[in-house]
Amino acid sequence: VALLGGGVIGAGWAARFVLNGCDVRLYDPAPEARDRVAQVAADARAAYERLTLAPFPQEGELRIVDSIDEAVAGVELVQESAPERVERKRMLLAEADRAAPPGALVCSSTSGLRPTELQAEMERPERFCVAHPFNPVYLLPLVELCGGERTATDTLSRAGALFRSVGMHPLVVRTEIDGFVADRLLEALWREALWLVNDGVATVDEIDDAIRYGAGLRWAFMGTFLTYRIAGGDEGMRHFLRQFGPALRWPWTHLTEVPELTHELVETIAAQSDAQAAGRSARELEQERDRVLVRLLQALRAEGAGAGATLAAWERELLDMTAVASAELDGGPIHGPETRIPADWVDYNGHVHESRYLELFADATDGLLRTVGVDSGYLADGGSYFTVETHLSHLRQLQAGDCVYVTTQVLDSDDKRLHVFHVLLRRGEPDPLATAEQMLLHVDTASGGAATSRDPVRGQVAELTRRHAALPRPESAGRSIGVR
Amino acid sequence: VALLGGGVIGAGWAARFVLNGCDVRLYDPAPEARDRVAQVAADARAAYERLTLAPFPQEGELRIVDSIDEAVAGVELVQESAPERVERKRMLLAEADRAAPPGALVCSSTSGLRPTELQAEMERPERFCVAHPFNPVYLLPLVELCGGERTATDTLSRAGALFRSVGMHPLVVRTEIDGFVADRLLEALWREALWLVNDGVATVDEIDDAIRYGAGLRWAFMGTFLTYRIAGGDEGMRHFLRQFGPALRWPWTHLTEVPELTHELVETIAAQSDAQAAGRSARELEQERDRVLVRLLQALRAEGAGAGATLAAWERELLDMTAVASAELDGGPIHGPETRIPADWVDYNGHVHESRYLELFADATDGLLRTVGVDSGYLADGGSYFTVETHLSHLRQLQAGDCVYVTTQVLDSDDKRLHVFHVLLRRGEPDPLATAEQMLLHVDTASGGAATSRDPVRGQVAELTRRHAALPRPESAGRSIGVR
Repeated sequence: VALLGGGVIGAGWAARFVLNGCDVRLYDPAPEARDRVAQVAADARAAYERLTLAPFPQEGELRIVDSIDEAVAGVELVQESAPERVERKRMLLAEADRAAPPGALVCSSTSGLRPTELQAEMERPERFCVAHPFNPVYLLPLVELCGGERTATDTLSRAGALFRSVGMHPLVVRTEIDGFVADRLLEALWREALWLVNDGVATVDEIDDAIRYGAGLRWAFMGTFLTYRIAGGDEGMRHFLRQFGPALRWPWTHLTEVPELTHELVETIAAQSDAQAAGRSARELEQERDRVLVRLLQALRAEGAGAGATLAAWERELLDMTAVASAELDGGPIHGPETRIPADWVDYNGHVHESRYLELFADATDGLLRTVGVDSGYLADGGSYFTVETHLSHLRQLQAGDCVYVTTQVLDSDDKRLHVFHVLLRRGEPDPLATAEQMLLHVDTASGGAATSRDPVRGQVAELTRRHAALPRPESAGRSIGVR
Repeated sequence: VALLGGGVIGAGWAARFVLNGCDVRLYDPAPEARDRVAQVAADARAAYERLTLAPFPQEGELRIVDSIDEAVAGVELVQESAPERVERKRMLLAEADRAAPPGALVCSSTSGLRPTELQAEMERPERFCVAHPFNPVYLLPLVELCGGERTATDTLSRAGALFRSVGMHPLVVRTEIDGFVADRLLEALWREALWLVNDGVATVDEIDDAIRYGAGLRWAFMGTFLTYRIAGGDEGMRHFLRQFGPALRWPWTHLTEVPELTHELVETIAAQSDAQAAGRSARELEQERDRVLVRLLQALRAEGAGAGATLAAWERELLDMTAVASAELDGGPIHGPETRIPADWVDYNGHVHESRYLELFADATDGLLRTVGVDSGYLADGGSYFTVETHLSHLRQLQAGDCVYVTTQVLDSDDKRLHVFHVLLRRGEPDPLATAEQMLLHVDTASGGAATSRDPVRGQVAELTRRHAALPRPESAGRSIGVR
């Protein structure tokens, strides 16, 4: 990927692409671009660690280069994120177009300029479209795609697939208008907000409160039409428009004017905004924003709603990309995949809650069960294993950011039971952090009662038990609890 | 509380108040009000069960009554939620005012009418203000408070305290304007959205996507000014307005007109909205909305952001209200508080994840530690207990909605160790669902190493151990795991 421009948006693109495993070359003559890109990448890394336990691929290489030619050589995508001046963008895009490989896509991050104007001087305008992201680019999934008069249809679908593969939600804007769709809505709300301050009705903090304690929570996953549809009951929008449409006739909002950004208004807004920030720097606010966005995305993923569905699709992609051949059963204990302990597992005392240790071990048990053939087909046929007993030993403490993995040894089994021993290890260290001994019982999920296992699971459990019998028995297996 | 009107808003108020332990009398002549109120209360109950583990008080009594007089007799608050017709509301409020106790507050849920007009015919207009909530009233914390010309200042502060006590975030609108603050912002965005459909630029689903995959996620906790402040860097709003203010001069949005709600436009919107709903009924959409809102509120609470801070404050209030005298140490095992298993603890197989059992037991251990004197002062002095071993036995399965509690018995202790046995029980049933045997080690949190306990903890642990020595030893204590 070639990035032209390393401001907040360009740096956000760099972070998203590099962390998704793409090599990036970034061209920005400004000397501060290098630091900004590094800082945004660090923020993105921290956010992704908390966002998902899915393993990311090896990071791509990020190189700051000195010319457009160097940036675009051999790339699949050129993404321009220069300041919003049409001549400057047009020139940059034309130059990149001349030097980039013929098969590469060329996109602009513009938030309002029309693609037809931007592609005017390109030799291959058919491969150009707008790809307008939202800040922070590495967390918000929306990217508006809009083609100009000379854009090929194929360009939009190729761009859609490309942005989807790095976890985004492409929205094709079918009609070329200034500001596309999202920024028109933002502008309408923003202008009304400015009027409310201008008229002394409310402060900036009160206006933000009016959003974030109410409608903002619905907007986060429903938008505006779906929200109002509910108000219309089973008749939906027809009923809602009949009932509330007339209210638009006596509009409350300022329609015909744009507030004059006098020095006085700017100072009022700025002073109120300073009070609202209460000493938090832009940096601190950015980090707060990221932390909360991560939480929201996780919450939405749990419900499969809105941006959460995008995250879930991205995670599936990451898992496929990094899947390892299962059942490398060389006779040693089974090694599970590495996971990184997210910062939000740490409680107010600086400790990881004990139930999180069991979560890691239960994941290892799930991995073992998949290895011996308990897959979706076996589950659908009513066979499964339930945990009936667990003996946890806590030896050393987990820290946020630790790269850990679980090794699993089968100690014993029969046609109903599976006795396993897990060890939680930190990468590169021989001493266990914790151990878990578990007894699993094979059940018929229809009746809920114990039942003998069936092939292929039965055979694979027996085979694994036989192989692991040669391993040394863990010292603490069979341990009971007591003050000794 | 007296509620006048049992539509969606009135029913939402009923649910919030009743579940917060207030007795409610609701007056609505419409025959369908009774069913609606019952259904909304059921939805709210389901949402609250997932929202928090904090214990709610005993539900208040909800009575549908036949007259305003009956509704308002003896109440502390009259909340009117009739249709948005000024004459009707003015009449209802005047009648309620005559019959209600002189000390009661009288509020209207109007979303746009001015309080001065509404209080015009009241005998005691000083006790009136607008209290404008957002749907669903039992989940969204925002309530806009706005007084009229004859409203006493005291009325607004009393109303603020009252709504805060049922988990809401009151926002005082200091200037009396049509539509207050929130609905002006919503209307501005909504009108622009209608134009985009009218002009054929985007469908209702695309417009909603443009919100919920992007800016909507930021609005959920930051609002609009705080978001833009970040874009201004350390210079904040001054820089942002200098850079982006001029864009308002060439506005993208429709300013001067209101779209004509022609039959054709209504049908276009309605058909697109039907497609967006994809067969989901209003009921189903409502339930989806509530599920996602609960998740979002929990996510925000984890970060102390926006509406999450309101939820946390509400939980503290609920915990205070329902706190029981600790250390009722009669020699029997310690009984922990009842908690209800939230629906979202259940996984795709219909099971509660094993780590949730340990969460319940770990909470019981925390309760035990508080009982023996490990409080915030003891922790601040560097003393604490860490779990070093846990032996879990799963006997029967938990179900969503189960009311469960944990009993805890101290089996043994010395000056460093505390050996306990927990039993998880379902209300009214003698057979345990699961047990957990735990060994806790007293540590010096500064060094991280084992250390002897100090008084008062040392003495209380010894005393509790002595008393519990008389209890029968649980059969499965000291159990080790193995295929027998």
